[in-house]
Amino acid sequence: MPKPPLPPDLDAFLERPNPAVIATLRPDGTPHTVATWYLWEGGRILVNMDEGRARLEYVRRDPRVSLTVLDGDDWYRHVSLRGRVASLDDDTQLAEIDRLSQRYRGQPYRNRERGRVSAWIEVTAWHAWNG
Amino acid sequence: MPKPPLPPDLDAFLERPNPAVIATLRPDGTPHTVATWYLWEGGRILVNMDEGRARLEYVRRDPRVSLTVLDGDDWYRHVSLRGRVASLDDDTQLAEIDRLSQRYRGQPYRNRERGRVSAWIEVTAWHAWNG
Repeated sequence: MPKPPLPPDLDAFLERPNPAVIATLRPDGTPHTVATWYLWEGGRILVNMDEGRARLEYVRRDPRVSLTVLDGDDWYRHVSLRGRVASLDDDTQLAEIDRLSQRYRGQPYRNRERGRVSAWIEVTAWHAWNG
Repeated sequence: MPKPPLPPDLDAFLERPNPAVIATLRPDGTPHTVATWYLWEGGRILVNMDEGRARLEYVRRDPRVSLTVLDGDDWYRHVSLRGRVASLDDDTQLAEIDRLSQRYRGQPYRNRERGRVSAWIEVTAWHAWNG
C-alpha cells in the first residue's frame, strides 16, 4: 500500500461526507467492524464514539485501525486507510460530534446526554480502487 | 454480540445486493479492510477474490474476519457479522463470481482471464444498528 500524502483527487474525495466502515481489534485479536462517521482533516481522520462503545476500549488496548470509505454514488469506488489512533480525548462540549453531525446530517448531534470521545487517526498507508 | 440465527428481517436485508466492507488480519495482526461483494445464503457468507489478492493469503493464515453490510438507501442502517472462513475453493468455472456479478451487476463477470477463489464464512456473532 502506498504511503501518504494522498493525491489531490483522493484528498477531495475524502472531504465529502461518505459512508465509511472502521475496523478495530478485539482483545483476542479478531477484527471488529462497524459503520462510522468520519472527518478527513490535514491528512488525519477524526472519528467520535459514545463513551460506552466497546471499540473505545479496543483502541485503548491496541491503536491499530483500518477505515474503508465508500463513494455513496457508486460504492465500487472506495479508499482504504490504514493507521493508528494517535489521541483519544473527551469531547466535553460535544463540539466534535456536532461537527460530524453538521457534516453528515446538517444539524447538531441530537443526543446531548451521553459522553463522547474523539479519536484522531494518523494514516500510515492507503489504497484506492476505482471500480 | 448476539449469536445466529438472525431474525427474519435481517435475513431478508442481507439477501439484497448491499454495499459491504470486509476486515481480515494481516500477518502482523493489523486489520485490513476493503469493499466487497457478498452473498448471504443459508446463514453463511460467500465472498470471492482474485487469486492474487493479499487478503487471500491473510485468511489462509488467520480465518477470522468481520463483515459490515450497509443499507444502500440509508447507510445508517447496517449489520455487522463476525465469523471465520470455513472453506477456500478455486472457482474454476467462475461460477460463483458470476453469481455475485449477476446479483450486483445483472451480468456475468467480465474478466475471464484471472483465477478466482471462493470463501465461505461461518457466522459466529452479529450486531445490527437501525440508525
